[in-house]
Amino acid sequence: MAGFSLKHVYEAQQFDRELLEIVFNVADDMKASLTGDRQYARELEHSIMASLFYEPSTRTRFSFESAMSRLGGKIITTENAREFSSAAKGESLYDTIRVMSGYADVIVMRHHEAGSAKKAAEASAIPVINAGDGAGQHPTKALLDMYTIKDNFSEIHGLKIAMVGDLKYGRTVRSLTYLLTKYNNIKLYFVSPSVCRMEDDIKNFLDRMDIPWTEEEELEKVLPIVDCVYMTRIQKERFQDPDDYRTAAGKYVLNLEKAHMMNSNAIIMHPLPRVNEIPREVDTDPRARYFEQAGNGLYIRMALLYLLLKN
Amino acid sequence: MAGFSLKHVYEAQQFDRELLEIVFNVADDMKASLTGDRQYARELEHSIMASLFYEPSTRTRFSFESAMSRLGGKIITTENAREFSSAAKGESLYDTIRVMSGYADVIVMRHHEAGSAKKAAEASAIPVINAGDGAGQHPTKALLDMYTIKDNFSEIHGLKIAMVGDLKYGRTVRSLTYLLTKYNNIKLYFVSPSVCRMEDDIKNFLDRMDIPWTEEEELEKVLPIVDCVYMTRIQKERFQDPDDYRTAAGKYVLNLEKAHMMNSNAIIMHPLPRVNEIPREVDTDPRARYFEQAGNGLYIRMALLYLLLKN
Amino acid sequence: MAGFSLKHVYEAQQFDRELLEIVFNVADDMKASLTGDRQYARELEHSIMASLFYEPSTRTRFSFESAMSRLGGKIITTENAREFSSAAKGESLYDTIRVMSGYADVIVMRHHEAGSAKKAAEASAIPVINAGDGAGQHPTKALLDMYTIKDNFSEIHGLKIAMVGDLKYGRTVRSLTYLLTKYNNIKLYFVSPSVCRMEDDIKNFLDRMDIPWTEEEELEKVLPIVDCVYMTRIQKERFQDPDDYRTAAGKYVLNLEKAHMMNSNAIIMHPLPRVNEIPREVDTDPRARYFEQAGNGLYIRMALLYLLLKN
Repeated sequence: MAGFSLKHVYEAQQFDRELLEIVFNVADDMKASLTGDRQYARELEHSIMASLFYEPSTRTRFSFESAMSRLGGKIITTENAREFSSAAKGESLYDTIRVMSGYADVIVMRHHEAGSAKKAAEASAIPVINAGDGAGQHPTKALLDMYTIKDNFSEIHGLKIAMVGDLKYGRTVRSLTYLLTKYNNIKLYFVSPSVCRMEDDIKNFLDRMDIPWTEEEELEKVLPIVDCVYMTRIQKERFQDPDDYRTAAGKYVLNLEKAHMMNSNAIIMHPLPRVNEIPREVDTDPRARYFEQAGNGLYIRMALLYLLLKN
Repeated sequence: MAGFSLKHVYEAQQFDRELLEIVFNVADDMKASLTGDRQYARELEHSIMASLFYEPSTRTRFSFESAMSRLGGKIITTENAREFSSAAKGESLYDTIRVMSGYADVIVMRHHEAGSAKKAAEASAIPVINAGDGAGQHPTKALLDMYTIKDNFSEIHGLKIAMVGDLKYGRTVRSLTYLLTKYNNIKLYFVSPSVCRMEDDIKNFLDRMDIPWTEEEELEKVLPIVDCVYMTRIQKERFQDPDDYRTAAGKYVLNLEKAHMMNSNAIIMHPLPRVNEIPREVDTDPRARYFEQAGNGLYIRMALLYLLLKN
Repeated sequence: MAGFSLKHVYEAQQFDRELLEIVFNVADDMKASLTGDRQYARELEHSIMASLFYEPSTRTRFSFESAMSRLGGKIITTENAREFSSAAKGESLYDTIRVMSGYADVIVMRHHEAGSAKKAAEASAIPVINAGDGAGQHPTKALLDMYTIKDNFSEIHGLKIAMVGDLKYGRTVRSLTYLLTKYNNIKLYFVSPSVCRMEDDIKNFLDRMDIPWTEEEELEKVLPIVDCVYMTRIQKERFQDPDDYRTAAGKYVLNLEKAHMMNSNAIIMHPLPRVNEIPREVDTDPRARYFEQAGNGLYIRMALLYLLLKN
């Protein structure tokens, strides 16, 4: 694809507006092909994807492996990659990746240490895609979130987006916020308990980019205003006092009653898995988009595999 | 296939005589194709099967994955599915299945809780096949048992079938008995120690269906009479007194001497794995059918995948 | 392939000079096809390989599965095969292999007990390839080592080869030595600390075959003389005194300075994973061949799969 210059995908920051558009256009093609002519069904027939997971993440792994399969590609897979570099044997990530480069055409790596994906990319003769590296990045997740927003609104310009829940530790909301800054004239609403507010680095970054944001504690205030509510789970272990946790967890629940406070063409997103923060009664509301969002991961990953391997 | 109306396969009770005949006919086709023209080798080329195993069962998983591969299909697989819904994350089976529906065309699920397969089927937009759910059902196993009997006798009508060993807890014999009632004029012989007799619910059901049955403790009495002996393992943990176990385990062994008491055209079945209840000396006896029976699992699963995905 | 008579591959001793040449020629073809016409890309399209690993060995498993994929074949895989024959169920290897024979066209087995591969081969109706059985054999590794030497020298005749490190417990150096004896007029240099010298059985075998060998403790003495240095890891647990270990580990390190003592057309091999015995600075030296060596595993395994399944 003219203009797609990446050799690896290790962090959301690699993507500028132009690259995002390329990926999203190819994702659109992939989506259309699956319900239509299946023109990509043998596109990567002679390629092998290695799923190199240093910790299990079945959901992410399945999404990538489904994407590769939909393109006709072959898969070799492990959720046991730590065994490669067991303490006893002590092999470096560098050596592991060099060896893997001889067995596959693209590596999808999940690792427990932040920064591992970039290190792997530097060692690798074949493309590396980061499927999450510890507290670091999970760029394909940020891309599918952004794609879901783009897919639901003809124009990103002017959108008002609320992020709700654990904004301090939530890797997904941080990365999505970063990608949103590639588009102009949006407004962000950060809705969270005080103990898990969005960090200053992101707020300062938004200020530098001249993107307006505001902080709220009350979900109800924001619901009637915004075009998109991005819900996340609030985790018990962030709170010192169990009572504080119960209060917060109760407050940031988007039930059907609250969903009805939203605009009729607004959307509800969630990175999944959810626990109680969105009850199942909301699933049939036309605003609910979280299963569609999970499904979009397939098209984004098909697009990335295609772009990295056919370029 | 005209007449095949199922969307999912979660329990043996879904199959009436007509559905059984359809499945068995397609299984015959599949078997013939593998040694012949391989006409189905690319039939499911564009389909993905997700093996979603909440507990390992390599044997069953391999049988399904071999079946899908023989049809040209693709596979994404985990024996680690509990991680999806880990206690920490707490995702419901409903959500897991909804997400999986976006990644695959058919789900083969193994679960530790009885009733899970039916729940999964209700949540799923794509076909679900039960590969065993706890103490519940393992319908494809019952089908392959029934298919093996049908394959060995031109006529089910009039057959005398003995079930031997642990009839109380044995999921396979209970399900097979159920399927046998779809055929007329058979007679059943339940041979077991008193602590693991066939349960009353099945016996009452047989009475209602007017199917004669009898209980025996002595294997030797039954061997000369029956057309089929279905052996199962007796498990130590069913017995309070270890001596009782040793007596029972010794009694329900079908060695070559006892096999010779059977009719020359009778058959010996076993769901495998076996331990001591059939010594290896019997393997070369022409009556031994347990490895053929395991192999039939492939044709039955090919047939079901084909029927569910091509209908 | 005319002349390839093996039904299974369970030990290096099965290969005579003629069989080695056949395997290496096919491996050359496979290698050429991957960067060229990919003429073998659908060769095994209708075949299934079962990876039956009783213990994890991701590196070896990936190499075999990549080989099968490059030939267009399908894969069913487990690193959990012990579950098949769990203590509770107690199934014999014989039964497991008989059942597996119905699901696949070739079995690649890794087992924790020496001799298991040969036992499996005897039970199996389909080809079995040994991917390592405990302290026993790992024949495909010996073949790829031998292939790497052959690939780097127009003539094996007259080569001087040093083996360095743990020669007592190193399965790879023992098997490679065995294969080298199939070629005439070579000379071997065994370089190791006294506690891990090459065993007498191999030395006596070399004497009987009239192949000259010598033992050294100083790596530097040998480096200027030989054509090939085969490095291995020295393991701490072989030494009673930790100081002895540190001395030995320090002594048998091939750094860049020492590499420069070697002939310019000599080569450095290592079975990988490495720890400190070859620092990364050596990787860019033209003598370094260990990553190429790992890559050669792919061609050898493609060749074996092809020969076993197409013959």
